[in-house]
Amino acid sequence: MPSNTVRFTEYCKRSHSAFSMTVKQKLHDEQTPYQHIEIYETEYFGTLMVIDGFVMLTDRDNFIYHEMMSHPAIYTHLNPKRVLIVGGGDCGTLREVLNHEDINEVWQVEIDERVTRVAEEFFPELCLSNGDERAHFHFGDGIKWVGDADPETYDIIIIDSTDPIGPAEGLFSRPFYRQCHKALRNGGIIIQQSESPLFHLDLITEMRAAMKDSGFDTIQTLNFPQCTYPSGWWSATMGGKENYLTDIRIQDVIDRSFDTEYYNLNIHQAAMAYPEFIRKKMT
Amino acid sequence: MPSNTVRFTEYCKRSHSAFSMTVKQKLHDEQTPYQHIEIYETEYFGTLMVIDGFVMLTDRDNFIYHEMMSHPAIYTHLNPKRVLIVGGGDCGTLREVLNHEDINEVWQVEIDERVTRVAEEFFPELCLSNGDERAHFHFGDGIKWVGDADPETYDIIIIDSTDPIGPAEGLFSRPFYRQCHKALRNGGIIIQQSESPLFHLDLITEMRAAMKDSGFDTIQTLNFPQCTYPSGWWSATMGGKENYLTDIRIQDVIDRSFDTEYYNLNIHQAAMAYPEFIRKKMT
Repeated sequence: MPSNTVRFTEYCKRSHSAFSMTVKQKLHDEQTPYQHIEIYETEYFGTLMVIDGFVMLTDRDNFIYHEMMSHPAIYTHLNPKRVLIVGGGDCGTLREVLNHEDINEVWQVEIDERVTRVAEEFFPELCLSNGDERAHFHFGDGIKWVGDADPETYDIIIIDSTDPIGPAEGLFSRPFYRQCHKALRNGGIIIQQSESPLFHLDLITEMRAAMKDSGFDTIQTLNFPQCTYPSGWWSATMGGKENYLTDIRIQDVIDRSFDTEYYNLNIHQAAMAYPEFIRKKMT
Repeated sequence: MPSNTVRFTEYCKRSHSAFSMTVKQKLHDEQTPYQHIEIYETEYFGTLMVIDGFVMLTDRDNFIYHEMMSHPAIYTHLNPKRVLIVGGGDCGTLREVLNHEDINEVWQVEIDERVTRVAEEFFPELCLSNGDERAHFHFGDGIKWVGDADPETYDIIIIDSTDPIGPAEGLFSRPFYRQCHKALRNGGIIIQQSESPLFHLDLITEMRAAMKDSGFDTIQTLNFPQCTYPSGWWSATMGGKENYLTDIRIQDVIDRSFDTEYYNLNIHQAAMAYPEFIRKKMT
């Protein structure tokens, strides 16, 4: 890289590797009560959001993550009406969820209101649906929210959090999964981002075991590329409550009324394939 | 990254991004008549081979690339007997091809013998099958080799080359594809690495058009993760000569007598799924 280039670099401790993007300018820098938020304008990836030194999203590749955190779970549910998003402050997942006309209520519970306010300013296209009357915002602790929920409140719970270190750690635990299981109706689905299949397979297998122990009948990990996250390869793990996660509403996927950039029926099915080194760990 | 860390960094011009690996030591450095070869011992990725500043392979993740450059094409061919590898000097693809007992002759035509000699020293496990009596080596120009081949000589041609800049440029051209088409028997398949779907979609669509123009009836791009290549997401593109690339020898995949780490039947099928932004470019 030319030596006079300004760049943002994320260092991945697990793999002793780093990923850098060339930066045109820093647009925002803020310490909230919870975390350190930075916004950069990059040369190729558009606007970049960084929290506590970790890439959260860029204009260029967030579509993959947000579509995969929403559409597979929704199209695997027979009749989804109420959705809870824990985290997801950038509102990209929320926007995808609200593309589904069948869904009539979405609650987004993000601990740090500043993430959403900053997203509204720097990622306005992700926040286009924030005014949708089906969208409800609560800024507070997602673990408490789920614990306080009445049993059988939600059809889908999406845990769109930062990594399992720091404030998000409790979101990767058996007690939290048990509360989620209770808060889901029968046929319900939990989905959570589950890091890199190449770097964090131990975390994925532990998360799967924890979901299973917490009452989820079937677990399915989805794999997808995510260029600006460590290894460029990411995953989300779904758990089903009396839902075997095998029945995709195929015709609804084909007939969908909104545009996607990554997701489609073939991609949904493809994301469920386990590479051999993962399959061996899962049997 | 700690400031006293020694690292190898590859800069990607297209995306103005860079990927770095922490290095324990440099093991080898050599300028051949064709290119600059470096070998490093890294902290997490094992041994790393770099050519002209670009990552060629690491111990940690080369299995994905080598398996995807070999098994999908071989299992899509009804009766593969003779295989040509153009490039592939590290011998990882060759090793995977030779796992197939049906194949009775493989020619590897690599322009730079030093790549293979260096691989024998630093990646011995990739070269384990180099002594197989079905393996034949020619160190020379792959374009000339294919041009000189008798018509209908090979069942599969694998183009396992560096990027389409520098010595490998001619391997991404219509004249070369026409020669490959001629050198393949009916039912034959060409497969070539085709860069990142996220960063180089223009190259992929151009390569597909060039293969089609050169007589290949059906084109299929395969997608797979490849952490240490730009964007962490890579592709290979297949062309079929009187082969519609849809019939996988499913039972043979299931009954295969060798171990894989990435490839299996589900992964083969999954790799053929086009994300929506790619599908839109291909129709």
